[in-house]
Amino acid sequence: MRYRKDLEKMPSYDGSERDYRIKINANECNLRLPPLVEERVMARLSRVALNRYPNYEYESLREQIAQNLSVDADQILIGNGSSEIIEKIFNAFGGSNDNKIVYPQPSFSMYKIYAKAAEAKAIEYELEENYKMKVEKYIKTVKREKANLAVICNPNNPTGNKISLEEIEEIAKEVKKIECALLIDEAYIEFGGETAVELIKRYENVIVARTFSKAYGLAGARVGYMIANREVTKMIEKTYMPYHMNKLSLVTAEIVYQMREEYEPRIEMMIEERKRMSEELKKEKGIKVYESETNFVLIRYEKAEELKKYLEELNIGVRSFGKTARLEKCIRLTMGTPAENEEWLRAIKKYVKEK
Amino acid sequence: MRYRKDLEKMPSYDGSERDYRIKINANECNLRLPPLVEERVMARLSRVALNRYPNYEYESLREQIAQNLSVDADQILIGNGSSEIIEKIFNAFGGSNDNKIVYPQPSFSMYKIYAKAAEAKAIEYELEENYKMKVEKYIKTVKREKANLAVICNPNNPTGNKISLEEIEEIAKEVKKIECALLIDEAYIEFGGETAVELIKRYENVIVARTFSKAYGLAGARVGYMIANREVTKMIEKTYMPYHMNKLSLVTAEIVYQMREEYEPRIEMMIEERKRMSEELKKEKGIKVYESETNFVLIRYEKAEELKKYLEELNIGVRSFGKTARLEKCIRLTMGTPAENEEWLRAIKKYVKEK
Repeated sequence: MRYRKDLEKMPSYDGSERDYRIKINANECNLRLPPLVEERVMARLSRVALNRYPNYEYESLREQIAQNLSVDADQILIGNGSSEIIEKIFNAFGGSNDNKIVYPQPSFSMYKIYAKAAEAKAIEYELEENYKMKVEKYIKTVKREKANLAVICNPNNPTGNKISLEEIEEIAKEVKKIECALLIDEAYIEFGGETAVELIKRYENVIVARTFSKAYGLAGARVGYMIANREVTKMIEKTYMPYHMNKLSLVTAEIVYQMREEYEPRIEMMIEERKRMSEELKKEKGIKVYESETNFVLIRYEKAEELKKYLEELNIGVRSFGKTARLEKCIRLTMGTPAENEEWLRAIKKYVKEK
Repeated sequence: MRYRKDLEKMPSYDGSERDYRIKINANECNLRLPPLVEERVMARLSRVALNRYPNYEYESLREQIAQNLSVDADQILIGNGSSEIIEKIFNAFGGSNDNKIVYPQPSFSMYKIYAKAAEAKAIEYELEENYKMKVEKYIKTVKREKANLAVICNPNNPTGNKISLEEIEEIAKEVKKIECALLIDEAYIEFGGETAVELIKRYENVIVARTFSKAYGLAGARVGYMIANREVTKMIEKTYMPYHMNKLSLVTAEIVYQMREEYEPRIEMMIEERKRMSEELKKEKGIKVYESETNFVLIRYEKAEELKKYLEELNIGVRSFGKTARLEKCIRLTMGTPAENEEWLRAIKKYVKEK
């Protein structure tokens, strides 16, 4: 068979994952839906006419989000997770090796894959010491490459740190001069950092991506969205085929969005837990704890691989990064319930003490 | 902003649609889930851990389908409707104007758009009188163009007619000689015609696409699948990003697939209704009724546009095709419930009589 050029070189994915008793390896929310939300979601699902193609469900969620963010509905696009949102944005700015996408490194590992899938040239900007972004240098990279799209993950995954709104604005302003779009991936924004949504009003090149997968605990429903100016959403919408969203996920996300106040206590709890765990981990000899504004904490430890194996034997799943540059000897720990956190913390303390 | 080349030229979609009292314009199933199926689906949905990324749900549905079709699980890919299945297959064989995709005309109107989205060159093969495919001529077109992918819709939408398995095999055998893949879109196969799944064993270039949207009434859940040889699925899988399917749709489709016997009576009923309606419509002066093996009937009528308007005034939604070549003055009527069918038939009869 004669396939698309270079398709052979695209990596294949193995989505399969082990189940762990304590699963803190994917930055998921370790709590099910709040009972009241679950009840309403189930009631709504039972009323869905599955035999009909999706129709107003997309529009309805769009309007809810738009209203809350004080933008117009046509400034919002919804996708199958912020995965699809980012995939399609990359696609819209890709298409050839002359089309370049700049993103920080280390950051979300999928950016590289999305750039490849979009047939764009991936340009990695190296973060500084402690994973800080040097705004001047980032802007310079984007301008030098005459990039079509620049990406910021704020707060950054898997490092956890944030970049200030002033800095983002500076980047937006500067890269706009070369007609470069700026995507701010806000997958973890509910846990810390300042959103860039307000910049959309002043900078036509700003795009913000959000997800229901993290703070709102809907990773299994695959719903994300983006906010941008109408001219931008209109172009990116062209990369979506009709009926890309299903009704079940749309109505579930809508109920969750309407009831988002129900999530405030648990989001606060996860932030508290992150602070508490960071302090506790800092007490351990040999563990470096990175600043985090998310629902996870990144640590560096000489015997990271051994520690990971030890935790796995206790049926606790954590995330390490293989040979990814700058993330060697790092482990990312998602905040679970307080009881879960107590347990993995105790295990880590025990391991460190015994070594 | 500097977007992907030619993105500007991609059409934007307006998915919004009017609700009709009798909706027979989208080849949907006009019945909700069978009560027993609905009960099980709801019970299953209530057990879904939405906070977790999809994992074994994809594999589980894949295995169900594979087992039933006597193929291996890795010969199956699942997508968001056969829409995404076809989009991704086109993508895998597209990428430049030298990459060509041949499909019949008139047929499913989205083929043209998918070819454009895949940045492939679309080659339309003109069907003969009464929308028949001349196999020799089709093969000749594919070979002349040295196409990467040839498409057959069997039974064909929106014309309703089928092509025999012998003819499909002849095409598969011939286009294989130039390493051309052959996609058979079987969206309506449950209503008539013979499936090409068995050809997969003998022809490495054959791909079959199926959907849960029509016979199984799950258009709102967006689940489709494809079957092919391992080498082919492995390559097409590369066009999918991880977690493209959500858990809600996957578990719903799995329950429906497990309980597919529950659908046999209604599928039989729709076939009976199609036969009955075809006979009834043939009695009407000036209406040409095309042969159909699907859940719809295509008719040709001099005053098609006026008839459509008349039906719309009665809140009956039917499908016409604007200025699409060969489909002028045509109306496509999806089989609804017997009561619905009685009503729109009566309306058509009344209109024809009064003209």
